Amino acid sequence: MMLKTHACGQLSKADVGQTVTLNGWVQRRRDLGGVLFVDLRDRTGIVQIVFNPDFSGDAQALGERARNEFVLAVEGTVVERDPETFNPNLATGEIEVRVHKLEIMNPAKTPPFPIEDGVEVDENLRLKYRYLDLRRPEMQRTLLLRSKAAKVFRDFLDGEGFIDVETPILTKSTPEGARDYLVPSRVHEGEFYALPQSPQIFKQLLMVGGLERYYQIARCFRDEDLRADRQPEFTQVDIETSFLSQDQLLSMMEQLVQRLFRETVGAEIPAPFQRITYADAMNKYGSDKPDLRFGLEIEDITDIVSTSDVKVFASVAASGGVVKALNAKGCATWSRKELDDLQPFAARYGGKGLAWITVKDGEWKGPIVKFLKPEEIAALTERLQVEDGDLLTFSADKKKVVADVLGNLRLKVGRELGLIDESAYKFAWVVDFPLLGWDEEAGRYVAEHHPFTRPKDEDLHLFDTDPGQIRAQAYDLVLNGYEVGGGSMRIFKREVQEKMFAALGFSMEEAQEKFGFLLDAFEYGTPPHGGIAFGFDRLVMLLTGRTNLRETIAFPKTANATDPMTDAPSPVEASQLEQLHIRTVLKPAPAKQPAAAAAGEKKE
Amino acid sequence: MMLKTHACGQLSKADVGQTVTLNGWVQRRRDLGGVLFVDLRDRTGIVQIVFNPDFSGDAQALGERARNEFVLAVEGTVVERDPETFNPNLATGEIEVRVHKLEIMNPAKTPPFPIEDGVEVDENLRLKYRYLDLRRPEMQRTLLLRSKAAKVFRDFLDGEGFIDVETPILTKSTPEGARDYLVPSRVHEGEFYALPQSPQIFKQLLMVGGLERYYQIARCFRDEDLRADRQPEFTQVDIETSFLSQDQLLSMMEQLVQRLFRETVGAEIPAPFQRITYADAMNKYGSDKPDLRFGLEIEDITDIVSTSDVKVFASVAASGGVVKALNAKGCATWSRKELDDLQPFAARYGGKGLAWITVKDGEWKGPIVKFLKPEEIAALTERLQVEDGDLLTFSADKKKVVADVLGNLRLKVGRELGLIDESAYKFAWVVDFPLLGWDEEAGRYVAEHHPFTRPKDEDLHLFDTDPGQIRAQAYDLVLNGYEVGGGSMRIFKREVQEKMFAALGFSMEEAQEKFGFLLDAFEYGTPPHGGIAFGFDRLVMLLTGRTNLRETIAFPKTANATDPMTDAPSPVEASQLEQLHIRTVLKPAPAKQPAAAAAGEKKE
Repeated sequence: MMLKTHACGQLSKADVGQTVTLNGWVQRRRDLGGVLFVDLRDRTGIVQIVFNPDFSGDAQALGERARNEFVLAVEGTVVERDPETFNPNLATGEIEVRVHKLEIMNPAKTPPFPIEDGVEVDENLRLKYRYLDLRRPEMQRTLLLRSKAAKVFRDFLDGEGFIDVETPILTKSTPEGARDYLVPSRVHEGEFYALPQSPQIFKQLLMVGGLERYYQIARCFRDEDLRADRQPEFTQVDIETSFLSQDQLLSMMEQLVQRLFRETVGAEIPAPFQRITYADAMNKYGSDKPDLRFGLEIEDITDIVSTSDVKVFASVAASGGVVKALNAKGCATWSRKELDDLQPFAARYGGKGLAWITVKDGEWKGPIVKFLKPEEIAALTERLQVEDGDLLTFSADKKKVVADVLGNLRLKVGRELGLIDESAYKFAWVVDFPLLGWDEEAGRYVAEHHPFTRPKDEDLHLFDTDPGQIRAQAYDLVLNGYEVGGGSMRIFKREVQEKMFAALGFSMEEAQEKFGFLLDAFEYGTPPHGGIAFGFDRLVMLLTGRTNLRETIAFPKTANATDPMTDAPSPVEASQLEQLHIRTVLKPAPAKQPAAAAAGEKKE
Repeated sequence: MMLKTHACGQLSKADVGQTVTLNGWVQRRRDLGGVLFVDLRDRTGIVQIVFNPDFSGDAQALGERARNEFVLAVEGTVVERDPETFNPNLATGEIEVRVHKLEIMNPAKTPPFPIEDGVEVDENLRLKYRYLDLRRPEMQRTLLLRSKAAKVFRDFLDGEGFIDVETPILTKSTPEGARDYLVPSRVHEGEFYALPQSPQIFKQLLMVGGLERYYQIARCFRDEDLRADRQPEFTQVDIETSFLSQDQLLSMMEQLVQRLFRETVGAEIPAPFQRITYADAMNKYGSDKPDLRFGLEIEDITDIVSTSDVKVFASVAASGGVVKALNAKGCATWSRKELDDLQPFAARYGGKGLAWITVKDGEWKGPIVKFLKPEEIAALTERLQVEDGDLLTFSADKKKVVADVLGNLRLKVGRELGLIDESAYKFAWVVDFPLLGWDEEAGRYVAEHHPFTRPKDEDLHLFDTDPGQIRAQAYDLVLNGYEVGGGSMRIFKREVQEKMFAALGFSMEEAQEKFGFLLDAFEYGTPPHGGIAFGFDRLVMLLTGRTNLRETIAFPKTANATDPMTDAPSPVEASQLEQLHIRTVLKPAPAKQPAAAAAGEKKE
């Protein structure tokens, strides 16, 4: 076997005159009057190899047999091309390799789609033949960058004294959170392991265990219905620290992110990152993961229109709702259709409608203008900094609905006006998340992050008066409108934990039942601790400019949680299930037949 | 909160005079006439802090309340100790910290066992309170070294152009191999994912995909009955390469291992490593993972005793078995009991007995001596290099039994004679494994490694004549009698793969059914490739001098596949099973009772 001495994509003029052996795949071949030109591809790139009866001898005839995706081994001499045949599209475009010897290492069937970037191929076909899809330069670049990104995370964290600890994949089903993937136990009849939704419990236990700084690039599992940006298994960079303040942790993480972006995409991210409270983010951008690459802030105008003749404004204001406006700068030119489309747009985000006013040549036009008093117009002009050419939009509803409607409208306008610098990386920490949210259905507070999230010290007194107002030492890292990380400081004092459980409506006894050994662990000298997890797949997606998490994963699942290549999941042998003490229940059994006592009975 | 400015274990004389803040756990406290000495421990080590009414003020009274494992924050001044109170057992033993300010960050209950090394504690108790067990310096050192070892693997492989690729945990059940852990699908009724026993298929597909060099520190899962050195989930450093010969790969891996041992335990491992064929290893050491820290080679003496009057020797030789001997140098002094114990020892390894001869003062003694002819004694004396004081042991049986018996006897003698240098790291590659093994039960050949293992080129012709003699391009890395890695070059030519399947007794159609998409993939231009996987847990075990894999894993499972801390596996809610379309079957239902299908009924 002739094994490579050089990589295709790395040959250059410096190698001219050298005899090299190359291994690679045929990207394409052209026969020009008996001279055969083959683009040979390996992981590093492409180089042109030439077969010519003048110097190729027996290799010539063999070369004629090569087709696309054949695996070749060639020995040849690197020569400089005639300048008029330089190929500027190729890194190796100034040289070529004259073949003396050829070995066809393996032939190839014609691939079901071309192995090149920018070709429109059905995604299912790509996933079925993922091993061919992975040959495309774009996929290779993505996986290379993913590998590099993991390396940078590790190098940084290792340098800061973090210990890489593997936590179990076969663990225990958790009482709260998303749906678990379960694994039946063969040894323990009727019992199950669960795949971890995150290493949360273990990372906190490692802090109790005195490791002080832990990290892991961890696989996590959630059996949720999938969207474009969700996978049944995903990867997070999981981090936990002891004896650090929130500020110390966030600033260390900023250095980490700076290094990540510098070493993967060469971007210099200024630090410290902007910090914006959850309340401000919701108010100004209608989102807890605002895209800060552009302005277009939302303004609260409830005070201005609380006694307005625009009935919906006044009544919403009176009933505790809010009225907010977004000034779509320069959008007064929108067509009637575009303006009409605002209503279904609002509806998509739960809004009952969107009022609008165009401002052209000093004149305000729109359905509600006639109901506005001059002083309201004056106040709006000032608050919204109205100028000629503006489109004013208004949403009146519950706070959350208004945020959703105008937050999404802001993104739409930003995109359409080209306000977004696609090359920019705009980071921010969203901080001071609420500790508790009111669950209407359950009629009680629930933890917004999780029940071990530490409240801000200055809000502790609110446990007794207004728990809904308590802010947490919880933070998200936001990049260009995506949440790329999040975490919190954890409660480590028993008296705070008791107050937290009380606010959640359960006694320490109930809590003990729910969280058992973790609460036990906290009794043995728990250090102050806190951490963060980065969404690794999403970070890679943003670093590579992709729009779908599947593009960042070597062997992803479809939205249907299947793998078209391996055909997972799939039926298994009855004997396998028997050993695991389970059987499948494929349909509800008819209720009347006594033999139907099989679990089907309980269904529906 | 007073957060640390310094680490306990890193203070030294250079810090004398400085005011420092420390955070840590109380290792122990002594009250000497109103002066309180506390050993404060963090991840880096221990330092003595001193409370004295002369300089501690209010901190003194608070300090009195501290007990073992309390978490403290102290501010104090580093002072040099009186030379007569230097503590040579402590890295920080020449200084102490005079406390000015104290905060009890958290109290602690009395731990169920002392937090120190070398204490005998029931392992189940340690696992139940693993978060406390992890505070012991020995466990922290082990996890630190594990983290470091992973880093060295990654740094080396990254430097050699390997791409770190994550392969799926939720994948498809494989037709061959060990028992799979299964995960029921919620979306696809009656179907299951399987947890991977190794990323074997994916790593080969990545080579088909043109990645050329892949690695992953991968979690693998096997639902086998456990032993001390097995865990349901384990970690391997998984490696695959294209366009490399076996020699190139092994020599690259030697550099990797050298770097690993240099950077973790400071050991210089000479390279190239010894290479020993499987046949030689079995012949000389009775094992395919020989401990080469000592000699004591086994000798084949079948030729010498084939016509012996020792009946068992002659009859075994005549029936195609072998007679081998181990000269236990200097063991002629063994007591009668020790010699008698050789029989049950042989039985444990399947042997019917062990003949022995002691050589003292030139005299051969033992039950078989009288049957030996002088020329046999002469030949044995030469072959076994018999000297005064030797104990000669003989096993006659099928090849495999003799290997097991004498191989294990060799280890026993090596240990008892103190021939083993416990500080040595003796590496060897065991190469040329047989490609196929004969399965008596199935009446056919089975793959010794797996069906994609590449035969040696020079043995290809044996497919037609004697497949059992084909040697594979398969190799194990052996260290001190443990297999720490193994792999093979893979078949990449269709005609070889067809011969392999034929030897295994199935047609390409049957193979297609069994291995489906993988064979499809091989049709599209597969490069020559091969790889290796290192047993990471076991390497860490050997690097840290532990004897149990559980000591190398932060949160391991017991031999019963349970976690005493989290209580996994455990029963789950009926609704969870319902969503997964399964039910538990706790006992085979009595065939006669139609209504008995309900799950509960079947229990006992």
